[in-house]
Amino acid sequence: MADEGRLERLSAMLRRRGVVLPAFDIYGGVSGLIDYGPVGAAIRRRLTQKWVDHWLSHGDIVEIDSPTITPESVLVASGHVGEFNDLMTECKACGSVFRADHLVEHLHPNADSLNSDEIDKLLDTGIECPSCSETAWTPAQPMNLMFSTTIGAMSTGRTAYMRPETAQGMFMLYPALYRHFRQKLPFGAIQTGKGYRNEISPRQGMIRLREFNMAELEYFIDPENPPIADLNRRTEIVHLVPDPDGPHAGETRMGFGAALSAGIVRHPTVAWFLARTWDFLVEVGINPEKIRFRQHASTEMAHYAEDCWDCEIHGEHGWIECVGIANRTCHDLESHEIHSNAKALRAWRQFAEPRSQTLDRLAPNGAVIGPTFRGDASAVVAALEALTDLPDSLPFELEIADGVSVTIEEGMVERRIETVNVSGEWYTPHVIEPAFGIDRIIWHVLDHAYEEAEKEGEAYTFLRLSEGISSVDCVVLPLFDKEGMPELAREITSAVNSLPHARAELDSSKSIGRRYARADEIGIPWALTVDHTSLEDGSVTIRRRDDQLQVRGFVDEILSRLSNGTIQELF
Amino acid sequence: MADEGRLERLSAMLRRRGVVLPAFDIYGGVSGLIDYGPVGAAIRRRLTQKWVDHWLSHGDIVEIDSPTITPESVLVASGHVGEFNDLMTECKACGSVFRADHLVEHLHPNADSLNSDEIDKLLDTGIECPSCSETAWTPAQPMNLMFSTTIGAMSTGRTAYMRPETAQGMFMLYPALYRHFRQKLPFGAIQTGKGYRNEISPRQGMIRLREFNMAELEYFIDPENPPIADLNRRTEIVHLVPDPDGPHAGETRMGFGAALSAGIVRHPTVAWFLARTWDFLVEVGINPEKIRFRQHASTEMAHYAEDCWDCEIHGEHGWIECVGIANRTCHDLESHEIHSNAKALRAWRQFAEPRSQTLDRLAPNGAVIGPTFRGDASAVVAALEALTDLPDSLPFELEIADGVSVTIEEGMVERRIETVNVSGEWYTPHVIEPAFGIDRIIWHVLDHAYEEAEKEGEAYTFLRLSEGISSVDCVVLPLFDKEGMPELAREITSAVNSLPHARAELDSSKSIGRRYARADEIGIPWALTVDHTSLEDGSVTIRRRDDQLQVRGFVDEILSRLSNGTIQELF
Repeated sequence: MADEGRLERLSAMLRRRGVVLPAFDIYGGVSGLIDYGPVGAAIRRRLTQKWVDHWLSHGDIVEIDSPTITPESVLVASGHVGEFNDLMTECKACGSVFRADHLVEHLHPNADSLNSDEIDKLLDTGIECPSCSETAWTPAQPMNLMFSTTIGAMSTGRTAYMRPETAQGMFMLYPALYRHFRQKLPFGAIQTGKGYRNEISPRQGMIRLREFNMAELEYFIDPENPPIADLNRRTEIVHLVPDPDGPHAGETRMGFGAALSAGIVRHPTVAWFLARTWDFLVEVGINPEKIRFRQHASTEMAHYAEDCWDCEIHGEHGWIECVGIANRTCHDLESHEIHSNAKALRAWRQFAEPRSQTLDRLAPNGAVIGPTFRGDASAVVAALEALTDLPDSLPFELEIADGVSVTIEEGMVERRIETVNVSGEWYTPHVIEPAFGIDRIIWHVLDHAYEEAEKEGEAYTFLRLSEGISSVDCVVLPLFDKEGMPELAREITSAVNSLPHARAELDSSKSIGRRYARADEIGIPWALTVDHTSLEDGSVTIRRRDDQLQVRGFVDEILSRLSNGTIQELF
Repeated sequence: MADEGRLERLSAMLRRRGVVLPAFDIYGGVSGLIDYGPVGAAIRRRLTQKWVDHWLSHGDIVEIDSPTITPESVLVASGHVGEFNDLMTECKACGSVFRADHLVEHLHPNADSLNSDEIDKLLDTGIECPSCSETAWTPAQPMNLMFSTTIGAMSTGRTAYMRPETAQGMFMLYPALYRHFRQKLPFGAIQTGKGYRNEISPRQGMIRLREFNMAELEYFIDPENPPIADLNRRTEIVHLVPDPDGPHAGETRMGFGAALSAGIVRHPTVAWFLARTWDFLVEVGINPEKIRFRQHASTEMAHYAEDCWDCEIHGEHGWIECVGIANRTCHDLESHEIHSNAKALRAWRQFAEPRSQTLDRLAPNGAVIGPTFRGDASAVVAALEALTDLPDSLPFELEIADGVSVTIEEGMVERRIETVNVSGEWYTPHVIEPAFGIDRIIWHVLDHAYEEAEKEGEAYTFLRLSEGISSVDCVVLPLFDKEGMPELAREITSAVNSLPHARAELDSSKSIGRRYARADEIGIPWALTVDHTSLEDGSVTIRRRDDQLQVRGFVDEILSRLSNGTIQELF
């Protein structure tokens, strides 16, 4: 499937041209950590900004930004302290440590879903140590994948972790978001930034990193009234791999609307986010033929989730999960409500008509409770009102605060069954989460754009990046390094760079052919060449990367078009 | 100086309106960690983007992005493992831990520059514990301020730290930058992102954070040929506080060019970056009257630095360092070269004319060295060529690789004194570093924009943020929630949001006056009101925040002007 040579040549080019490089290289490097060089960092910034713009344009989505250092309590509630583990095993002969599922992945299609007993059985079938070829393994042990640290020091230190995902930040800010949107659902919040995962054996270049760029959206909805977008005007046909244990098992191709109608996609808001994920990926240059949406089997899905899809992209590493879209139901907010004791993680649902409701309650008898409990009387009344499980008989112990109880006796309360009109109710919103791995997407953008060709018998490569994703919009080339051409080229470069969202760079070393090749190799879509005529009339030659066609254009017009996004129309 | 009430009201507003909030609040919070809410995160993104654009427009500056997790070896070389400490002391009575310099800062103008003996003496003058009022302290002890963690696990784990600054990433990438700029200095690299500092007692809201947003530029120059920008066309007069131990001690006001000519600013490139720092701060809305540049005293400056300035901004917390501009000379690259053994941290300086140089060398005698050393012969020749300290006599031990030596005897070499022409030389570039604290700048932007007024006898506040810094450009207000006004308002909002760099939000709840007030409070510069006339002719009322003036305008024209940055000209 993959052409090993191509992968190596592409990786070498990315490194040589300052797109993506191994980090801390002069100190021998650290596997799983990468640098974005001058070309790569520009691509990363533009792609990330497009992601932000893509979601903010919805109008009911806002951005937030929260710390990467996260106190332990938050990650206990999210389940990461207990469950974010890989099974590890150590070679008894040489002491090398490996992820156990990696060692047996050729024996099982979903090795990372096996438990330790199942993995141990497979290890015992004679798996060889990649380092020393022996076959004796210690029992597989879970290792937590978070980077841990300590906030503060000495007696005041407390355990914390580098966040494994950005999502918890949005859950923490739910009260502020609910206020910002004036108590009206649905709404969403996005965040981009670093996530961390202490992989034991990082591999596959940009695919499995220890520190990565994430971009997540948490979209909060009323489960009784989920937003339903119109998918009927969409025309694309997409590659779907529905739940292998479900009624639609097997690969299929159809539209998002049809997949929802057929019940393959189980939730209308999930279907909408699948479609909007598609839009983003295609916009930044992912080849639509190399996208598929794979639905999780129920055995693979977290217990609370109701419908999970991986958006996988095909490239040199095969099919790789780049986006996950999950209906996480009320799981996250409910768990934080329980662990933090916060009451603010809910939304109010107004009934269309007031509903009559029967209440079975213990009505306080103020004449007795007041004198008996004095200063605590109002806490007693509040605790009685909040009581959901009524006692079978009196007296009983009523908790009025953490660890503080009082005895409620006959005469203090009266059991009443009442009918009241209620205008609405509090509920825990459900969450649909599209989570994007930005590095993996950038990798595939580069992979899909990379084209190997030949020119005059020599290898020649293009990076066919979309306009607006390439590191700069145009390269400015003085034909000769004399007669005022370098000065004019510098002026033009500077004029482009003073436009708010356009970028140019100057290249004046070596032959014009070499300079075109250099620009093609890192995907600059336009080359502006300053020649003798330029000095006379202010026109330059515009060369289009994708077909090497050249036309003549005036600098003013180029600037005005660039500031509106493209000079494509000049051809 | 500071009006305590104003600081509290501003902080409360920032929290209530989702600008800046304490992080992990539902779990009781963690001091020194903050969230940017929906309004604040938008401001942060825009201000950071302006910072990036500001430097990239120079043309010889590029962006890079490196990991926050940094292996120990890098931070040993940078000095952070050894020197990035605060002195701590513990109250003997109650065990509370404090930064020692904070306890004595009322007794010394630069308490953070004192050593432990000096601090201990001041502590012994009867300083009371802020927690228990006792006065007995343990001797001050240095504590490293980096958050430490471990990469990998078990036997493969290695110590790492969360980066205390972004600068090391640029030094690590120097070889890639030198290649990117085709071996021509000067050039610079910027990086924005998180920095970490494990403060013991964080305080002052956004000023002293444990995790903060940084933005740094490392500008690499040839010290023999430093770039000199023309400062003569600049007209601003700025507040300078030169080195108190130097010949210009005392406060003064003058232009950047004059300060350079007078020798107050000691380096022309530093002067240029002071000026460009000023430009950025004023552009994003810092009040120029509240900026001053304070030069470090030689006692305060790192030993290697030649000229350091703090750009301080005045606000509710007094004068606060928000930017540091330092001439770090060759210190960083040289230190990494020594620690990493990398040879790639230099630049080539071509001489205008070849220079004749006298070489005192041991010329290898190939006829003897070849047969004697065989496969190692070329390594021996290379080692002889690289020899700088010639031995006083033969034979001597020559190191040809790490730990491998050979004996050089009479007859193998001949000592020669030669005159050669050399065309250039390798040198270690110097670095000018402007380092920006983005959170501190945002705090002061908010502080300077915050204005308390009165309207009809009630408190009324404005946030006079610059256009392009406010969270959204305009709020769209349907006058009534009926007759098609909400629909048209939604359409306009959506049209603005579909422009690449403009942003609108819709507000349809409560009275129009309340909605104007809400928009003024978070600094939205324009309000577009949809009324009956709008439904007939597509015009809306445009209200300008700063003087509440209203004019009528057509949506198409507003859109076209917004996409070019402002609708100011409609007034």
